[in-house]
Amino acid sequence: MVEQHGPNGSEDPLVIAGHKLSSRLIMGTGGSGNLSVLERALAASGTELTTVAMRRADAEGGSGVLDLLRRMDIELLPNTAGCRSAAEAVLTARLAREALGTSWVKLEVHADDRTLLPDPHETLDAAEQLVGDGFTVFAYTNDDPVLALRLEEAGCAAVMPLGSPIGTGLGIRNPHNIELIVARAQVPIILDAGIGTASDAALAMELGCDAVLLSSAVTRAQDPERMAAAMRSAVHAGRLASHAGRIPQRFWAEASSPPR
Amino acid sequence: MVEQHGPNGSEDPLVIAGHKLSSRLIMGTGGSGNLSVLERALAASGTELTTVAMRRADAEGGSGVLDLLRRMDIELLPNTAGCRSAAEAVLTARLAREALGTSWVKLEVHADDRTLLPDPHETLDAAEQLVGDGFTVFAYTNDDPVLALRLEEAGCAAVMPLGSPIGTGLGIRNPHNIELIVARAQVPIILDAGIGTASDAALAMELGCDAVLLSSAVTRAQDPERMAAAMRSAVHAGRLASHAGRIPQRFWAEASSPPR
Amino acid sequence: MVEQHGPNGSEDPLVIAGHKLSSRLIMGTGGSGNLSVLERALAASGTELTTVAMRRADAEGGSGVLDLLRRMDIELLPNTAGCRSAAEAVLTARLAREALGTSWVKLEVHADDRTLLPDPHETLDAAEQLVGDGFTVFAYTNDDPVLALRLEEAGCAAVMPLGSPIGTGLGIRNPHNIELIVARAQVPIILDAGIGTASDAALAMELGCDAVLLSSAVTRAQDPERMAAAMRSAVHAGRLASHAGRIPQRFWAEASSPPR
Amino acid sequence: MVEQHGPNGSEDPLVIAGHKLSSRLIMGTGGSGNLSVLERALAASGTELTTVAMRRADAEGGSGVLDLLRRMDIELLPNTAGCRSAAEAVLTARLAREALGTSWVKLEVHADDRTLLPDPHETLDAAEQLVGDGFTVFAYTNDDPVLALRLEEAGCAAVMPLGSPIGTGLGIRNPHNIELIVARAQVPIILDAGIGTASDAALAMELGCDAVLLSSAVTRAQDPERMAAAMRSAVHAGRLASHAGRIPQRFWAEASSPPR
Repeated sequence: MVEQHGPNGSEDPLVIAGHKLSSRLIMGTGGSGNLSVLERALAASGTELTTVAMRRADAEGGSGVLDLLRRMDIELLPNTAGCRSAAEAVLTARLAREALGTSWVKLEVHADDRTLLPDPHETLDAAEQLVGDGFTVFAYTNDDPVLALRLEEAGCAAVMPLGSPIGTGLGIRNPHNIELIVARAQVPIILDAGIGTASDAALAMELGCDAVLLSSAVTRAQDPERMAAAMRSAVHAGRLASHAGRIPQRFWAEASSPPR
Repeated sequence: MVEQHGPNGSEDPLVIAGHKLSSRLIMGTGGSGNLSVLERALAASGTELTTVAMRRADAEGGSGVLDLLRRMDIELLPNTAGCRSAAEAVLTARLAREALGTSWVKLEVHADDRTLLPDPHETLDAAEQLVGDGFTVFAYTNDDPVLALRLEEAGCAAVMPLGSPIGTGLGIRNPHNIELIVARAQVPIILDAGIGTASDAALAMELGCDAVLLSSAVTRAQDPERMAAAMRSAVHAGRLASHAGRIPQRFWAEASSPPR
Repeated sequence: MVEQHGPNGSEDPLVIAGHKLSSRLIMGTGGSGNLSVLERALAASGTELTTVAMRRADAEGGSGVLDLLRRMDIELLPNTAGCRSAAEAVLTARLAREALGTSWVKLEVHADDRTLLPDPHETLDAAEQLVGDGFTVFAYTNDDPVLALRLEEAGCAAVMPLGSPIGTGLGIRNPHNIELIVARAQVPIILDAGIGTASDAALAMELGCDAVLLSSAVTRAQDPERMAAAMRSAVHAGRLASHAGRIPQRFWAEASSPPR
Repeated sequence: MVEQHGPNGSEDPLVIAGHKLSSRLIMGTGGSGNLSVLERALAASGTELTTVAMRRADAEGGSGVLDLLRRMDIELLPNTAGCRSAAEAVLTARLAREALGTSWVKLEVHADDRTLLPDPHETLDAAEQLVGDGFTVFAYTNDDPVLALRLEEAGCAAVMPLGSPIGTGLGIRNPHNIELIVARAQVPIILDAGIGTASDAALAMELGCDAVLLSSAVTRAQDPERMAAAMRSAVHAGRLASHAGRIPQRFWAEASSPPR
């Protein structure tokens, strides 16, 4: 797959399971009502990896979306959104692998429709099964530092804590938890869900996340293409800032120049 | 001056007192210990307008900084940092105009050294005098929506509320005040002071500010060049996001795709 | 006046201009539609000092409110709410002094009706005049640490920064500013305006304020009496906590008992 | 046990598993170095229910603490802090039941020593076993709304989400999660862990929690007795406020009295 991502000379690639991506913004296609709007948004986002809900593929434009991604040379990350149990998620992942020829899967097991929060037990159970079955698992999880570690121990290739529930646009409700997760992780941490606007995405990266995944913040914005471009810049900004050694926070002021 | 800013075809210029700038990031030079580091940071920031403290010009590298800006074709915005009264600030502005041939001035009247907060009365007094004397005044102020309006009424070309005290890196402590200021302003609002990292700058723009001014967040970062690039992207991201119609915040989740 | 406040044995009195109050909750009467509801709320609040708008006294129940406070043995703090200039405020204060026989006044000069924020220049001007005229001035101000200090220097007996604009219920938008004000004050600091619920009042005290003033948070609550009791307990709680030496904030956990 | 709680006429009792408590503040004894200091703090807190770590009982003063609680007529809630697996927790609970004659247990299964966060899987497993074995289970959990619901479905008598990790004093890092938990709960929700100061406790109650449990915020404060009194008032304040119908939050100001 590496070859698809253009020059390997990219200076700061995201490496997941041995694959390099030069973009750290992963898009979801959900929420887009129109393929041509989606195409422009995907192009503006610069994403190289896009997730599509297998169980909702028809509702999302069906083969149209898959064709679009193929045409744009964007890698596909099938997801199991809409599954309510480990068994369902494992089955969905297997069907996706057969149909699409990829062993990458974004594991999502939603506990209920009101919160769309991940079910911690079913998620871990499914992750263990899928890893055992040879999948490269991206695990969507709540922001619990313990569960994040368990998913990594289970062999997930990337752990994807939420900032806040899907579609709420509430941003990162608990930066402390994200910092705790990042502090102990050995695999890439991808902030997934809750992003509402660009500063949320920049903050995710500043907290130490390796990438950001978002869907409706772009697809449901009034101007998806413009918001996609905003998110691309924001992720880039946050990544740079996280490695630039920010100034400490102080209670009293400090003159930028010493007084004469 | 317009000609200096390159192609006027820039799609979303910042217009202050009839002049167009394509970059919405204004840099300060304070806090930089080294001219070559400063040069790389300024280049990475993409700034077209840079402020220099007149009373501290020697400490900041003296004519070296002015030469550098001239060489880089960056416009100069002299500031009155370090002044403690309207009289001092007016005098400093006049000396700057004579010496540098620009009637643009960033007005700063600091009340004391511990907070470096603006003195509201001296600031307004000086603004009135300077406007009357033909200056194009950029007024540094606290985040008081009333004082911001008074400064605009006094004829300031731009009003520059702080996010938090100079050099604290505390970001935007009171987004509500910035929103109140923006909601009633007819002149450009430039977030000045307090920025610590990229997400702060993006947030400033999302709140509706027209530009961001910062110094030590870049000059005192461990890697000023990288942080300058981060800020450039963050300002761009925030500007785009502020015009892209973000999704509303919700209490309950909303699936990005409708269930089948 | 001291005698009115009951036993001087109160352990932690608020002292303003030499007068002792055992309650640190000051109530406003505005927003109450009904005198008997107001009476129960005042009783539940435990307040010993209550502010009444002179220019709105009729709208607030007129002499009914004044009679009620007299009957309940609650001291009266006339305020100048609704005044738009120093001249108006000074005139209103003088009329209040003549009519009510008190030289205490809460100075409010509102810049406009949409924000009801204080006008910094008119407020300071009026404060200077009123102090010179022998008034004991409680100055309502924004949360600007510089203006707070100027009002103290002008001779105000207490400085009353807002948490957020009047009636917004947004709580304390900028705790850092309140801490900066408290850190340098020599007179009592009373958090005034913006309180929405009990935790806001407790936080004000924890930040170091000497008292809290609120009106609509109680008078416009669905159950004013219950909310008044809540505020009384919250102010008490915050005062105790501010003197109890709270634990520091830590990034990692710390077991409450050492492991065996 | 009811009889121990004094007059059942208390107006707003907390009812857990059919037992009434008039205090909504539950104390832990951990972190107290001195039995007489602890005694004064417990008295000042007004608590009627106190938790003691079974595995650390010696370190905490051993039988001294148990004697103290008996003497003060405070009910004992043994906890399993320090346990790392369901098996350990179940064993510890059984030993506590035999030794102390109570079937109430606060279930804690810590995943590791750095975060002291609950292990979600071991916690749920232990809860199911203990409920099946006739225990009245108070389940300490992270703030995950899904796990909270699972613990309730497993038969727990009360669910105890954390505000932030034990001993951090970071307060309630994610109020949205607490609101989501409260919105769907049928059993009492007790905010457990993370409280640092009084306003945190008030906020917990305002978010809809039924009670607050804390230890080191009191036992490790510089003045435990005073902080205990602060917490008592704060919990009371927050409870009242949560039922008083607070005013809504507004963007623009609203005068407390209508202008004449």
